[in-house]
Amino acid sequence: LCNYKGTSHIKLAAAIEFIHTATLLHDDVVDESLQRRGKPTANLLWDNQSSILVGDYLFSKSFQLMVEADSLKVLSVLADASATISEGEMLQLSAAKNIHIDEATYFKIIDGKTAALFSAATKVGAIISNMNETYVNALSNFGRALGVSFQITDDLLDYVGFEQNLGKNTGDDYREGKITLPLIKTISKSSKDETIFLEKTIGKGIQNPSDLDQAIFLMRKYNAFDDTRCEALLWASKATSYLDVFPECEIKTTLKELTSFVVSRVN
Amino acid sequence: LCNYKGTSHIKLAAAIEFIHTATLLHDDVVDESLQRRGKPTANLLWDNQSSILVGDYLFSKSFQLMVEADSLKVLSVLADASATISEGEMLQLSAAKNIHIDEATYFKIIDGKTAALFSAATKVGAIISNMNETYVNALSNFGRALGVSFQITDDLLDYVGFEQNLGKNTGDDYREGKITLPLIKTISKSSKDETIFLEKTIGKGIQNPSDLDQAIFLMRKYNAFDDTRCEALLWASKATSYLDVFPECEIKTTLKELTSFVVSRVN
Repeated sequence: LCNYKGTSHIKLAAAIEFIHTATLLHDDVVDESLQRRGKPTANLLWDNQSSILVGDYLFSKSFQLMVEADSLKVLSVLADASATISEGEMLQLSAAKNIHIDEATYFKIIDGKTAALFSAATKVGAIISNMNETYVNALSNFGRALGVSFQITDDLLDYVGFEQNLGKNTGDDYREGKITLPLIKTISKSSKDETIFLEKTIGKGIQNPSDLDQAIFLMRKYNAFDDTRCEALLWASKATSYLDVFPECEIKTTLKELTSFVVSRVN
Repeated sequence: LCNYKGTSHIKLAAAIEFIHTATLLHDDVVDESLQRRGKPTANLLWDNQSSILVGDYLFSKSFQLMVEADSLKVLSVLADASATISEGEMLQLSAAKNIHIDEATYFKIIDGKTAALFSAATKVGAIISNMNETYVNALSNFGRALGVSFQITDDLLDYVGFEQNLGKNTGDDYREGKITLPLIKTISKSSKDETIFLEKTIGKGIQNPSDLDQAIFLMRKYNAFDDTRCEALLWASKATSYLDVFPECEIKTTLKELTSFVVSRVN
């Protein structure tokens, strides 16, 4: 898209992938997850120790790869992204089981834990290509909106997928008391009795096996899935519009298709 | 020591301290430690999740501070040190409970998990001062030898401190099956029966409360504490000699005193 000639983009892509994998390893320890992408997690196959240390190792290897790209500006973007990711993860941890979390806090969490890395990944492409600020910002905003769209979709699928018996880990967010958009939209409209139910099952974590079905019933009642789906599509549309500054070309078409793909699972 | 004028040393010192604290937070999760420096660990006061995420956060903040120092050479040194630390930690994990670990492997572990950060810390001081290679290498070697000396002393104190009832966490290495220098020196001289005892209590981890006393008895029998003490003093002496290239001055005297202090607890 930026007519880059060189090899730094390969090292940086690998660095981003290492950061991502490292956060997944640590996340699975934090969430005590047993499955990731339908396969046993590293913490299940080995132990928490290995997952923590190998995660740290991947962080350090990604740091080495970034340094090889030989650009202080790129390092600065990636250092800031790393800090934002950590802040997002910590905010998510401190917001868990709190049914009074609002949409603004939710967006701050997903902007940190997910969209910051998407944004850094797309932004550094423009930076190493020596593009001017307009294009750097456009790709930074594209990545951020794509990341937000992706995470909203992911959070929606955790419920809709459970309902349709699609995936193996679906329903986890409710069980773990992770407050995501479908739930926030439902809580904001709940009656007093319904709020007591949600406070008991999520806030206090006292759940019967049938409570998730009841929560999904409430989400349907208040149209939370459709509203969440609209948000995901809105952010996908925003993402695509940030690409307007670039001339039409094959890569631009691919990025637009990628954006559609991210939300296609709920489209 | 290098007549540095500027403020980057403060940011880099903070970055090193953040990396160190991050590794301690993760180590305490990995080792399931309940005390650190005589106080409850973060994983005990809060939980593993918080320790992992706050560790990651400190790594990312240290990365930001390093970038502010505005030197790709410094970033390269610190990225390499980070990778070496992780490798040392992983080697230590994979070497646990293996009584056939030799001294070479032990030195590789402590060189990674401890000395690499000491070395990076002292080396970057010379780099930001634009010193020539002789001084950069001298400070790099000084830090490395100081770190090795520190870690050997630490490992010795885990046994000698237990014997003298000095600290609260002493004896942990034996209980956790961490193979350190006093043990390696003892294993290399043990009789067949003694080796069976060590294999059972460390290799298989089947321990009675009195087994640590028996292990310490064997260490005394084979002079392992004195031999380990000699190694620590040897590395302290090496550390000091690396400072020879610098003219006598107050800072040099302070670094020599620091080196003496590191081993003074067993001197």
